[in-house]
Amino acid sequence: MTTIDLNSDVGESFGRWTLGDDAAMFGSVSSANVACGFHAGDPGVIRRTCRAAAAAGVVIGAHVSYRDLAGFGRRFLDISPGELADDVVYQIGALQALAAVEGARVRYVKPHGGLYNAIVTHSAQAQAVVDAVKAVDPGLPIMGLPGSEVLRLAEKAGLRAVSEAFADRAYNPDGTLVSRSAPGAVLHDTAEVAEHVLRMATEGSVRTIDGSILKLRAESICVHGDSPGAVAMAAAVKSALGDAGIGISPFA
Amino acid sequence: MTTIDLNSDVGESFGRWTLGDDAAMFGSVSSANVACGFHAGDPGVIRRTCRAAAAAGVVIGAHVSYRDLAGFGRRFLDISPGELADDVVYQIGALQALAAVEGARVRYVKPHGGLYNAIVTHSAQAQAVVDAVKAVDPGLPIMGLPGSEVLRLAEKAGLRAVSEAFADRAYNPDGTLVSRSAPGAVLHDTAEVAEHVLRMATEGSVRTIDGSILKLRAESICVHGDSPGAVAMAAAVKSALGDAGIGISPFA
Amino acid sequence: MTTIDLNSDVGESFGRWTLGDDAAMFGSVSSANVACGFHAGDPGVIRRTCRAAAAAGVVIGAHVSYRDLAGFGRRFLDISPGELADDVVYQIGALQALAAVEGARVRYVKPHGGLYNAIVTHSAQAQAVVDAVKAVDPGLPIMGLPGSEVLRLAEKAGLRAVSEAFADRAYNPDGTLVSRSAPGAVLHDTAEVAEHVLRMATEGSVRTIDGSILKLRAESICVHGDSPGAVAMAAAVKSALGDAGIGISPFA
Amino acid sequence: MTTIDLNSDVGESFGRWTLGDDAAMFGSVSSANVACGFHAGDPGVIRRTCRAAAAAGVVIGAHVSYRDLAGFGRRFLDISPGELADDVVYQIGALQALAAVEGARVRYVKPHGGLYNAIVTHSAQAQAVVDAVKAVDPGLPIMGLPGSEVLRLAEKAGLRAVSEAFADRAYNPDGTLVSRSAPGAVLHDTAEVAEHVLRMATEGSVRTIDGSILKLRAESICVHGDSPGAVAMAAAVKSALGDAGIGISPFA
Repeated sequence: MTTIDLNSDVGESFGRWTLGDDAAMFGSVSSANVACGFHAGDPGVIRRTCRAAAAAGVVIGAHVSYRDLAGFGRRFLDISPGELADDVVYQIGALQALAAVEGARVRYVKPHGGLYNAIVTHSAQAQAVVDAVKAVDPGLPIMGLPGSEVLRLAEKAGLRAVSEAFADRAYNPDGTLVSRSAPGAVLHDTAEVAEHVLRMATEGSVRTIDGSILKLRAESICVHGDSPGAVAMAAAVKSALGDAGIGISPFA
Repeated sequence: MTTIDLNSDVGESFGRWTLGDDAAMFGSVSSANVACGFHAGDPGVIRRTCRAAAAAGVVIGAHVSYRDLAGFGRRFLDISPGELADDVVYQIGALQALAAVEGARVRYVKPHGGLYNAIVTHSAQAQAVVDAVKAVDPGLPIMGLPGSEVLRLAEKAGLRAVSEAFADRAYNPDGTLVSRSAPGAVLHDTAEVAEHVLRMATEGSVRTIDGSILKLRAESICVHGDSPGAVAMAAAVKSALGDAGIGISPFA
Repeated sequence: MTTIDLNSDVGESFGRWTLGDDAAMFGSVSSANVACGFHAGDPGVIRRTCRAAAAAGVVIGAHVSYRDLAGFGRRFLDISPGELADDVVYQIGALQALAAVEGARVRYVKPHGGLYNAIVTHSAQAQAVVDAVKAVDPGLPIMGLPGSEVLRLAEKAGLRAVSEAFADRAYNPDGTLVSRSAPGAVLHDTAEVAEHVLRMATEGSVRTIDGSILKLRAESICVHGDSPGAVAMAAAVKSALGDAGIGISPFA
Repeated sequence: MTTIDLNSDVGESFGRWTLGDDAAMFGSVSSANVACGFHAGDPGVIRRTCRAAAAAGVVIGAHVSYRDLAGFGRRFLDISPGELADDVVYQIGALQALAAVEGARVRYVKPHGGLYNAIVTHSAQAQAVVDAVKAVDPGLPIMGLPGSEVLRLAEKAGLRAVSEAFADRAYNPDGTLVSRSAPGAVLHDTAEVAEHVLRMATEGSVRTIDGSILKLRAESICVHGDSPGAVAMAAAVKSALGDAGIGISPFA
């Protein structure tokens, strides 16, 4: 049976504030990008998220971020590579301990938000992330955008580089994502998203915003968990894949 | 040869701010209580501290704290036991990863400041710390005040409980520390401190503030590193112990 | 026409996290306790909250707190009076500026959460809050629990002390609130809450948890805004008061 | 008598951490850029700094920053203009209140560190700072680099734009500062700094790193307070100016 990995951002509550419905998402995804406290996720949230992921058989990844609670890690920060690497090690370690006390393990690393976007092209920060992950555990894969600098450097360093595609994002003909500020950047129609994902999973391609078909190798597909209707969308994606005979299974 | 452990708080710089002279302290102590980011210690500081400790052959402990940068972790925080336990696991894990990338390991846990003082008597918070340490690694000792609730509960939970004494603090006849606000609470005279420590190390006792001699079992002696003259004081303590034929050696 | 003030906590979102439906609450209340950034409320949230309050004709108060985002300001912090006073001045000033750029003014101060509870009895912290408010503007009233230390000290210092009652909390026969951990502590039934509030507004009394009637002078009644059904409850309270010929009008 | 303004960054301690010797600097400078809590300066530090500045007759300015304690505000943050403006209003307001309770007033605004550098060229962030300052008080001058975008936009908005020069920094022939990473970027020799400042104050020019003389209009000269020897350097600058018959006097 063909399978594909679905991943989603979870553990993004903080203290009194709740975001997303992680428990529900665990019914649809196979990999969980767990916030590590720098953009979201206090230790209690992280631990409960690890517990729930473990109970649901969902694989745990470290969703490492710039230190930026007020900006939810979405803003580029011109941090030095050395400081960034240390911040990444710190976050992975914190998550490893909280996962371990719940009988689980951190199985991959996915940079978050502003950092994710920066290291598509920012070589020094990308190398810092690679250095940090390799120093912690050279067996930890890094998840990122196909063709990104971080994945190129990860492979060069001997790490496994895992490409992901986005279930609900439109693509430019060159394989980059359509900017969120442009019309049509985010797909909201369930049927359209399901078709998008099916093409990724079965043909290894996407229909771009101008209608052309583009090859896009992805080992994992990201479904969002923090928007209204996210849970239903994820369930619809899983269901459409199942109807096409494709199972959901972790890449790691 | 008789030996005693000397421990000191290190890694308490943060970002632009420097505190203490850790490198110099590593010449005198055998155990380093490394800040974990909640009261002090950004990831870069922590990593460099672990590197220097490892290079000096100094054992690393996790100096876990309430989340309180502005108060340097010195203020009691009425946090729930569950949240406290998760905060402790998070901090130990972060330090473990940063120590590991420098080829070192976390070998014990010493609560810091306000938390240290609280769990002398606060059973619920003490139990939370014990639960957290045990969950992370039941082989990790906890360091604390002789007779404290946290050491009692640690032993009850099967953890090693390590009692410490303070080189430069005056004791009440009941074995508690003289409050910092009282006159004579802190010893500033090097000869007096050396005599204090020698009595601890050779006789297992202290001269209290009223002149009486009190039995005080301590496996480690804490020397402060953040005050003016701290480095010289630590060196004087080490030297006085050496003159008496007592070596400095980690308890762990 | 008889009137009473209804107050509610608002501006408690932070960055990516949303809490409460402030816009809806402004349809029912006359006074808004606006978070000042220490337990909730980033500057953008605060400014938009001030703008909306001003537009709705709702009076703005400073909802000052311990510095504790992770704990939402709900945990007692053993901060020194001097530091607390400075933290309070800082928060009021920040809110004053954000209110002013929206054409509004800060008209009172209400301590939040753990601080609110502490200064019912903690004289030193209560005095610190009073000192801070008086230093900023002796014309600013302080809102608190009837009979609390902070209101006693506020009056002694020549400040206006404003007593408040809670629409949805049960009272003990001695006038204290039934602890949240006890059964029946929070009233969830709209009719019951309406009756509770009507008795406060018309008779200046409450029915306590044992059924007795207790005199309780309150210049303002607090309705919560962050729980499910909060908006509907606030609207029901306003409606019940209106049916009884009582208008909603700010105390300040 | 000819006079010039000397300004320095102060109030940059935080909690347990001390930076600079503000009291000593107040003997040499006429304007104090007081940290507002986002890169440094807790409320207690800020208040004591305002008190000392007021006592010394030194004018207070708001040293506003990105929210970045770990990076001391030195790292560029790609914050949206709206959020930046609100952060600036918040910081000015907090400082205004703390200054007021010490009988002083905030008389100008100087952006700090990464923000200072960004708005030399970043129009959107520069405009956000201008908008924030104008909204708080159109009578508040903004201090910045001669020729910077922020000063251009400040003047356009009707604000007073105050140019500053740096006592201990080398200049490129185009008037920009020699990058800190280049050799000779920072002047350490007291006589050289004194000559540099004298030329600024008497001729309105600087000798650039290639030896040429460049016109450089500056209403204020920045002397650093956080490096070793900073206090002595500031005193030497004041003394050299005095010997040349130039007094130190606030621009504001």
